[in-house]
Amino acid sequence: MRVGGRDLRAVWWSDEGVRFVDQRLLPHALEFGLAREVEEVARAIEEMAVRGAPALGVLAAYGLALAARRGEPLVPAHARLLATRPTAVNLRAGLEAVRGAGPGADAMLAAARAHDEAEVAAGTAIGGHGLALFRPRTRVLTHCNAGWLAVQDWGTALAPVYRAARAGLDPFVYVSETRPRLQGARLTAWELAQEGVAHVVVADSACAHLVQRGLVDLVITGADRIAANGDAANKIGTYGKALAAHAHGVPFYVAAPLTTFDPATPTGAEITIEERDENEVLTVEGVDESGRLARVRVAPTGTRALNPAFDVTPHGLITGIITEVGIVPANAAGVAAALGRAGRG
Amino acid sequence: MRVGGRDLRAVWWSDEGVRFVDQRLLPHALEFGLAREVEEVARAIEEMAVRGAPALGVLAAYGLALAARRGEPLVPAHARLLATRPTAVNLRAGLEAVRGAGPGADAMLAAARAHDEAEVAAGTAIGGHGLALFRPRTRVLTHCNAGWLAVQDWGTALAPVYRAARAGLDPFVYVSETRPRLQGARLTAWELAQEGVAHVVVADSACAHLVQRGLVDLVITGADRIAANGDAANKIGTYGKALAAHAHGVPFYVAAPLTTFDPATPTGAEITIEERDENEVLTVEGVDESGRLARVRVAPTGTRALNPAFDVTPHGLITGIITEVGIVPANAAGVAAALGRAGRG
Repeated sequence: MRVGGRDLRAVWWSDEGVRFVDQRLLPHALEFGLAREVEEVARAIEEMAVRGAPALGVLAAYGLALAARRGEPLVPAHARLLATRPTAVNLRAGLEAVRGAGPGADAMLAAARAHDEAEVAAGTAIGGHGLALFRPRTRVLTHCNAGWLAVQDWGTALAPVYRAARAGLDPFVYVSETRPRLQGARLTAWELAQEGVAHVVVADSACAHLVQRGLVDLVITGADRIAANGDAANKIGTYGKALAAHAHGVPFYVAAPLTTFDPATPTGAEITIEERDENEVLTVEGVDESGRLARVRVAPTGTRALNPAFDVTPHGLITGIITEVGIVPANAAGVAAALGRAGRG
Repeated sequence: MRVGGRDLRAVWWSDEGVRFVDQRLLPHALEFGLAREVEEVARAIEEMAVRGAPALGVLAAYGLALAARRGEPLVPAHARLLATRPTAVNLRAGLEAVRGAGPGADAMLAAARAHDEAEVAAGTAIGGHGLALFRPRTRVLTHCNAGWLAVQDWGTALAPVYRAARAGLDPFVYVSETRPRLQGARLTAWELAQEGVAHVVVADSACAHLVQRGLVDLVITGADRIAANGDAANKIGTYGKALAAHAHGVPFYVAAPLTTFDPATPTGAEITIEERDENEVLTVEGVDESGRLARVRVAPTGTRALNPAFDVTPHGLITGIITEVGIVPANAAGVAAALGRAGRG
């Protein structure tokens, strides 16, 4: 992904520590964060300076490599990083990739780099496979941000969109704003503008209506964890889009690298759904008239909110899963086939 | 509805003109507006100082009575008020009630007052009929605001909730925040707090997940127009909730007075869906840390948005319609029966 003439990834290694695009400030400012120790990496994850399942895995991998280099004890470092967020299984995959490569710090850093490159390669391959779903001027609905910010480069759900755009197919994207943290309105809209892809932001609530009116040809979202039976956890609001797509016969695809597959979780019912701070719902952050970052409260003082961060889409509503090894059916056989092709079966 | 020890309606007549609660400032400030001429009434509607289908009808009725009293020409006054917002048919019903009572200004004001009282009575009756759907601790999901602010007193969707609370049934309400204008988080949460009803605000996108998890016993929303076949237009996001309720066998009711019924519109497909300013989606208003009203932009500069303000829920997804003459099936026979009981058949 190029931004302002510069090649960027969401997360990268440097001699000072792990650097990252601070996604909390986008689209209003493009600034970079630096985590010099494991605790700072953990906080960057918890506070969502970095978010997106594959990017979290890469950041956690570099975080564990950082612990090794600094001589921090690895078992608590691993535990601290794994406990940051419960839903995205990529976090565990990134940590596993590095832990297994130890004990040497150099070997662990090399493993983190390899994990990083593998996720980039997966995004590239997902884009290639997903491209087959596009015709000229296909109108896509997506949710949250599953672009390069979430996946280092290309993305998952957005990778096929970018490929279609570069192939001259002129895709159009309905960007669901994705309350409460507005990753759609803030991050996906920003990415699509950088890449010159035509798009429009809509309220999450408008998506079922757009599908009903026949304005959507294809829904693609990312995922945070895919269970053995093909059920997929993803950003809260995904399930409602899947219901709408199903009701109107619109194909609904999940795009995810194999690091998002969790064959140890039998079904979506066993996936832990993170509940986040109620203030994410009760307040909204943006820039005020003078261009300064400001947070406004929308609800009455004293009002409480409930903030589940993910939901589970049952596999029966998913047309297929776009992976780096191809598009597979969203069922036990499809999941097993994808993992088998990658030697994880 | 009592607020701070004072009996209030959303809209009322005074010697100076039509007064109203300025709903744009809630919940942060309770202030009252005054429209002294038809153009000011029209702007209060367009800018949503007053919103909610039945309240719009009452305001329009008083607006036309105001025109008569001021000697403003009635045909353009009627046309101006009718053109303010296209979806809620109550606007037309309020105007019809007054226009037919003319030509005298006193007679027209009396007709507007009668229309007002009839809507209040309808809300009261809707509360009584809807109460039958409640058991102890029923967990209700609602959308937007269909309480006293929208209906002068009691409300439509919230009327049964208020009745259940006063009957000691201890209802619990999931308040869908209702982007883009956040009528749920701002107005419904405020009303429920005034009335002491337990509730929690959730992102619109969380509602399907809550239904899936079995946390919702009953969905009740208002409506802006009900077609002859029972299809119901309501605030954008209603349709998605109906799909979720249907998928999980949760009853989905629409509560509306007969002024919301439009037998001249055969099906939902013929209902005009208002599209509002994209800045409602691209920005959010609330109070900043110093308690001042502020508007923040959430999307990148230059981003466009699409802002359909309503959607249509097909009658097949609606368990029943709660009206002032009872709960009727959401189909042509049910609509005809309700209108027939009121002598409009």
